[in-house]
Amino acid sequence: MSDRPLRPLIRLFSRLPGLGSRSARRLVLHLLEHRESLLSPLVEELGTIEEKISLCHICGNIDVQNPCHICVDSNRDSKILCVIERVSDLWALERNPSFKGHFHVLGGVLSALDGVGPEDLRTKELMMRLADNPPEEIILALSATVNGQTTAYFLLDHIRSYNEKIKITALAHGVPIGGELDYLDDGTLTTALDARRLL
Amino acid sequence: MSDRPLRPLIRLFSRLPGLGSRSARRLVLHLLEHRESLLSPLVEELGTIEEKISLCHICGNIDVQNPCHICVDSNRDSKILCVIERVSDLWALERNPSFKGHFHVLGGVLSALDGVGPEDLRTKELMMRLADNPPEEIILALSATVNGQTTAYFLLDHIRSYNEKIKITALAHGVPIGGELDYLDDGTLTTALDARRLL
Repeated sequence: MSDRPLRPLIRLFSRLPGLGSRSARRLVLHLLEHRESLLSPLVEELGTIEEKISLCHICGNIDVQNPCHICVDSNRDSKILCVIERVSDLWALERNPSFKGHFHVLGGVLSALDGVGPEDLRTKELMMRLADNPPEEIILALSATVNGQTTAYFLLDHIRSYNEKIKITALAHGVPIGGELDYLDDGTLTTALDARRLL
Repeated sequence: MSDRPLRPLIRLFSRLPGLGSRSARRLVLHLLEHRESLLSPLVEELGTIEEKISLCHICGNIDVQNPCHICVDSNRDSKILCVIERVSDLWALERNPSFKGHFHVLGGVLSALDGVGPEDLRTKELMMRLADNPPEEIILALSATVNGQTTAYFLLDHIRSYNEKIKITALAHGVPIGGELDYLDDGTLTTALDARRLL
């Protein structure tokens, strides 16, 4: 076969989320057809990123500096700590200007099926932060999935048994802005009804 | 925003076929989360490929050697030349063991809308091959699209005016193997009916 020299590269690309072997092949070919404008800059940029980027030892964010720019930013509110699953959640919250507290990236959620226990998450680092510099409020901004909520309740218990004074909150559930009732699942609708508010 | 150092990389990835800015961001994060197993091998492999791979000056194939391994393979049938649009078509035909001739990659098709003329394709190289070492048969394996068929007829005229002896063929049209009539478009069905064969 003719794509033999490219196969290791195609295999690597096909392991990325959302790509299969066919789309990876198409992608590699596109890179080779646009060598100057795409392949060379990509090689350079990936090399730089691989060299420079590291995990923030405090919050688990990915940045070119350690501690990351959020952890060292004195303008942010150190009284609020938002616990999230992944760095992508941090980016999503950072795109939203309403939150100006600090973050703690867990690195995943508890999952009995996938064999993810508390020791696989950055829970120890979280408890160390609470010991050193306890915030007034912890927002558990975890997914509204079974695993996400299991993790939230595990953390709630864990933090409570350690420090009773910290206020622990979770994101509100309900109808998404712009969402049509007709397309909502029953769970969301029930939650939105239960949590209805007086106008 | 927190993804600032990664933005040039995300922008590069989002220019690849099938990826948008959201999937590119997800992909970059995945790379950073799997540094040892994915990012480092990818950087290395991309660098190697960028360095080694070149275009075969005879057929336009992409390979680690120039002329490519197909052009130098003496076991292949030099009497048949298959003209195709892109390297991906070459790979598709090579996955199929029934064709053992040589290839000529045009690098695209004629397109009035996109401003692609004969001088943008590897037609000059094709005519030079016909002068140096004329094959007995040329298969015009181009897409069954308007542009593909326009290119096929242009090449047919061009080759005919140059050498009348070469047999010029095209791929058969009809019902794809495993295809259900109900799901076929009218054009394919009409072509398949017109080209019906005696059993």
